[in-house]
Amino acid sequence: MARRLVPADHVGSAHHVGSAESREVVLAVDIGGTKTSAALADRGDMLLCTETAPTRAAEGPAAVVSTVAGLAQRLLDGSPARLSGVGIGAAGVVNAVTGTIVSATDTFADWPGTPVAELVREALGNLLVPRAPVVVQNDVDAHAEGEHRHGAAAGAASALVVAVGTGVGAGLILDGSAVRGAHHVAGEIAHLPTPGAEHLRCPCGRMGHLEAIGSGIGLHAHFRWLGGDPHIIDARGVAAAAADGDPIAIRAVGESAAAVGRALAGAATILDPERIVITGGVPKIGDAWWTPMLSAYADDAIDALQSTPILPGALGDDAPLRGAAASAWRAI
Amino acid sequence: MARRLVPADHVGSAHHVGSAESREVVLAVDIGGTKTSAALADRGDMLLCTETAPTRAAEGPAAVVSTVAGLAQRLLDGSPARLSGVGIGAAGVVNAVTGTIVSATDTFADWPGTPVAELVREALGNLLVPRAPVVVQNDVDAHAEGEHRHGAAAGAASALVVAVGTGVGAGLILDGSAVRGAHHVAGEIAHLPTPGAEHLRCPCGRMGHLEAIGSGIGLHAHFRWLGGDPHIIDARGVAAAAADGDPIAIRAVGESAAAVGRALAGAATILDPERIVITGGVPKIGDAWWTPMLSAYADDAIDALQSTPILPGALGDDAPLRGAAASAWRAI
Repeated sequence: MARRLVPADHVGSAHHVGSAESREVVLAVDIGGTKTSAALADRGDMLLCTETAPTRAAEGPAAVVSTVAGLAQRLLDGSPARLSGVGIGAAGVVNAVTGTIVSATDTFADWPGTPVAELVREALGNLLVPRAPVVVQNDVDAHAEGEHRHGAAAGAASALVVAVGTGVGAGLILDGSAVRGAHHVAGEIAHLPTPGAEHLRCPCGRMGHLEAIGSGIGLHAHFRWLGGDPHIIDARGVAAAAADGDPIAIRAVGESAAAVGRALAGAATILDPERIVITGGVPKIGDAWWTPMLSAYADDAIDALQSTPILPGALGDDAPLRGAAASAWRAI
Repeated sequence: MARRLVPADHVGSAHHVGSAESREVVLAVDIGGTKTSAALADRGDMLLCTETAPTRAAEGPAAVVSTVAGLAQRLLDGSPARLSGVGIGAAGVVNAVTGTIVSATDTFADWPGTPVAELVREALGNLLVPRAPVVVQNDVDAHAEGEHRHGAAAGAASALVVAVGTGVGAGLILDGSAVRGAHHVAGEIAHLPTPGAEHLRCPCGRMGHLEAIGSGIGLHAHFRWLGGDPHIIDARGVAAAAADGDPIAIRAVGESAAAVGRALAGAATILDPERIVITGGVPKIGDAWWTPMLSAYADDAIDALQSTPILPGALGDDAPLRGAAASAWRAI
């Protein structure tokens, strides 16, 4: 399964692979739980061409890295161009200084401890120019960097970028840089104790955290807890049922969204970001999600924070790749 | 009412006033809701002598500033020494760039909008050396700076310093500097929506925030809500009753402390600070407060954050003055 994304001001991916011969490019990579995307990017972090493949997370680190190398080869497509650098956003908690995975969910076999930067450097071999940097960060941090450099948070000195999808991820930009924290977990809001989530277990094992109700999986779990139709098996199904007028689904969507809004009010009071940016699949539910989310934020945020803009992400799936590209250029 | 604090390695305040003639000193000021403290401090932020007076907050900004000037005159005590700079920690939300109050509680009449830096500069007149900086920040930020420079957070790259007293204040240090935020409120945890506080109104007017149950006033309000003895009128009384074995008081202290621990777990997941430092009057209750607080933190913090040190403040009432002194020296 491959797809190509070509920016509106560029036409024809073959052209861009060719053009890579005559100008510097970096490889931008987004390693997610199910798929890995890679792109060649120019100095403006524009994606010249993109390829995607399944991540093979269950097969272990060698398979994941081999997938990245295979995508790079397809993107360069026999061209003599070489990569000036590599920027990677990877699932899991990442030590961005060493490019190593600190911890991860069980989706990725043997992922904790993997020296991703080192393995990708070896696998790419002479596709890299000498001394090309290979930079790895958490995928949501890459996402936040993309939205901050080129998207909905562009120009802001500080931003909280929250991805509400299968899970809940967040990246935090202060003074223009990603905040990593003492244990590489700064910016997390998934594990914020959140009123309204007390009855649900978070993937971390504890009760009552935001992710337990606010994520796609949490939305579905809350729907089932409310007595919703057992034939509906995921958040997409709950959203469809809500659109069809199912009162339990409407309530589940509203309460899941309100928990996110309440957690954002809490995060805002701690961080006071210039902007909050929301991305991911769950907010695509639309007004049935955004209205209760914003209403809960307004109910809980102190006066000074009522005017903090809460904006949808502007870059969609390109955000982590453009952020990863930016991280590579920064290191060159 | 005046008091003098003399550091252990200095004896005799008169000597220090005298010694101010022969070396540079700054004025450090802590403007709290009930009292204002001021000190002369040397380049190591050591407090050479300290004076305290009632703040006269209800009489308006001119009275508050006049109190500061009066304390400075008493400290200099006719000596020809002049101040190389002034650092002020002030109650309220402060624009630290302009030295102006953004907003404040009703305790301070006409405090919002007060250009504290400018007014103090005028009031001190030729007690200042030419072009001496006058720096103003929020009092809890000054407190955090003191604990970070010289106290329990010394040497940490990042720290969350939380003062649990009449209210709940917090200061946030990242990469060695205080984080101010887009609206000057960063580091606040008082208004974090906190499970267990839903039944109590926060001073900001909203329900369920940390301060509504975790502050001294909140602890007493929760005690009353639980049906506690109406003759007990404040947190100190609740603490005394708990020490005497009153089961409602014991429960109130435990649940108030647990709310703080839960909020700290939430703040830690967002900020991932290297250390958390707790100061203020309420933690002085002792084990009856610390044990449930730490237990709630352990229940709610993700694995990576279980080992984050949570330490009592090391400087007591000197912390905001030493932080204010540091802010003055930094500006010189």
